[in-house]
Amino acid sequence: MELMKLAIKKLEDRGVTIEDIAEVTLFLQEQYIEGLNLEECTKAVMQVMEKRETINAVLTGIAIDEVAEKGLIDKEVCDLITEDASLYGIDEILALSIVNVHGSIALTNFGYSDKLKPGIVKVIDNMGKEKVRCTTFLDDLISAIAASAASRLAHYGVDEYK
Amino acid sequence: MELMKLAIKKLEDRGVTIEDIAEVTLFLQEQYIEGLNLEECTKAVMQVMEKRETINAVLTGIAIDEVAEKGLIDKEVCDLITEDASLYGIDEILALSIVNVHGSIALTNFGYSDKLKPGIVKVIDNMGKEKVRCTTFLDDLISAIAASAASRLAHYGVDEYK
Amino acid sequence: MELMKLAIKKLEDRGVTIEDIAEVTLFLQEQYIEGLNLEECTKAVMQVMEKRETINAVLTGIAIDEVAEKGLIDKEVCDLITEDASLYGIDEILALSIVNVHGSIALTNFGYSDKLKPGIVKVIDNMGKEKVRCTTFLDDLISAIAASAASRLAHYGVDEYK
Amino acid sequence: MELMKLAIKKLEDRGVTIEDIAEVTLFLQEQYIEGLNLEECTKAVMQVMEKRETINAVLTGIAIDEVAEKGLIDKEVCDLITEDASLYGIDEILALSIVNVHGSIALTNFGYSDKLKPGIVKVIDNMGKEKVRCTTFLDDLISAIAASAASRLAHYGVDEYK
Repeated sequence: MELMKLAIKKLEDRGVTIEDIAEVTLFLQEQYIEGLNLEECTKAVMQVMEKRETINAVLTGIAIDEVAEKGLIDKEVCDLITEDASLYGIDEILALSIVNVHGSIALTNFGYSDKLKPGIVKVIDNMGKEKVRCTTFLDDLISAIAASAASRLAHYGVDEYK
Repeated sequence: MELMKLAIKKLEDRGVTIEDIAEVTLFLQEQYIEGLNLEECTKAVMQVMEKRETINAVLTGIAIDEVAEKGLIDKEVCDLITEDASLYGIDEILALSIVNVHGSIALTNFGYSDKLKPGIVKVIDNMGKEKVRCTTFLDDLISAIAASAASRLAHYGVDEYK
Repeated sequence: MELMKLAIKKLEDRGVTIEDIAEVTLFLQEQYIEGLNLEECTKAVMQVMEKRETINAVLTGIAIDEVAEKGLIDKEVCDLITEDASLYGIDEILALSIVNVHGSIALTNFGYSDKLKPGIVKVIDNMGKEKVRCTTFLDDLISAIAASAASRLAHYGVDEYK
Repeated sequence: MELMKLAIKKLEDRGVTIEDIAEVTLFLQEQYIEGLNLEECTKAVMQVMEKRETINAVLTGIAIDEVAEKGLIDKEVCDLITEDASLYGIDEILALSIVNVHGSIALTNFGYSDKLKPGIVKVIDNMGKEKVRCTTFLDDLISAIAASAASRLAHYGVDEYK
């Protein structure tokens, strides 16, 4: 539980709140569930956050972003990560750790969010592009958590989250 | 090579040409590669079709659609497949067989195409919804092949396909 | 719940009991949990069986084995499946549907069981090799369920299953 | 190509040569290919090393091991990684980046090698256990590369590597 709090704090330190992620979930799922609201999405996001796979992926991914940003690793590897060339690919793989345990709906929603970059995903992606921060792993983590919460809503129904 | 021809023929029998799939690839990739045309996309799609993983997935997926359509398997399983409830999920998993061997770009494009249903994907999906045919596996196969061809274009560059 | 019962019945019809699968789980996990017994493994296997991903994969995989066995699909595809050449690969992919939702421990145990073929996995694999039945998908399904139950035991501890 | 050389150098700096990995491949594949020798396995390993997915995974995974070893990241995350609890799981996910592009045979061999720890995999795993170095990601990278080379040998035949 302590590690979950740390994961949420690290997300906030990097500019991402649970509510920001819930808004992405709402965007992904509102066309399928009539009347779905942000509060229900927030609860679903929190259930995704409780999972060990999510906590480990968030803590590891943000740690890589941070050491790349600070230049604490070999310059070539730093460049590889901070440039986030479309062919780097390790960021999407790490996010799979979260997505896989939430089934096929999480997987397709992850791909969709990763390409479309709704809400906070775009904000974070731009921070990376403008070299404000290294956000290579962060934007994929957000898409993965939001997509997994969308999958939970689809599987268990919104009544679970009222 | 004989099996590849059979896979292409089966796709055509179910209403999908290589060019239809290439159009989805063009849709997915044209914003990243200036001047990308349908011929280049068609060549990339053909390279995806040559892969054993693609051939096996296409032949198996279409075989399941066919036996479900004809009622040759247990009624409960038939219903499960023909209804293609969003929670079935085996169709997306089978498509991963094609997508995985083409890397992260293929994966995210697959999710994107599966949600957005551009061109022939929508046509085939509608055929399934209107119970004209069972197309549960077919639409995911199309998205997977198109997304993998998009990934090839991103990895190897369009010059490879001129 | 009806579909879970059907999935268990189909496994039994093909020669596989829940206890057979629990024995594979016991083999995979007994070195890590002192005093682990078959009853606890059986309970863990039953929890894996309750998951929609497991039910759908079992029902679909066995349906393919059956139609291939009966020759109800194109001869070339039938041959592809019944021969279960090491390069076919769709059987392992389908099993991933079960394994993925149970995390990394399930994944590595699946690979291990698929190569080593402990207990019932070997029995079923031999049935396929001797052409008694088509068991191409069945042996991978067993490994996937057993490995996922092993992962549950590792994650939640054996006390959950006493 | 420069990055491939760097990846090989980083592996060597951490105590792993290409030949060490080729020995794992030989162990995995010799029962299936009569007369398979270390030279052929070495060539197959080198082809896996050339892939962008491998290079990126190796450089990223070793970078994480290094920063965790040096304590350059948050203590809680450091502990999470250096302890390499069986439930951490991100190391196996990163290795999937290599394994996935090489198909199903690579996947099952990866799980097998990860559990059995043949040759250098055990040596490196022990280094981690004895806290000589942080090797959490390194042992999975080795299993993934060796398993992918085994898959190449199975797919393309040994003649390709003579």
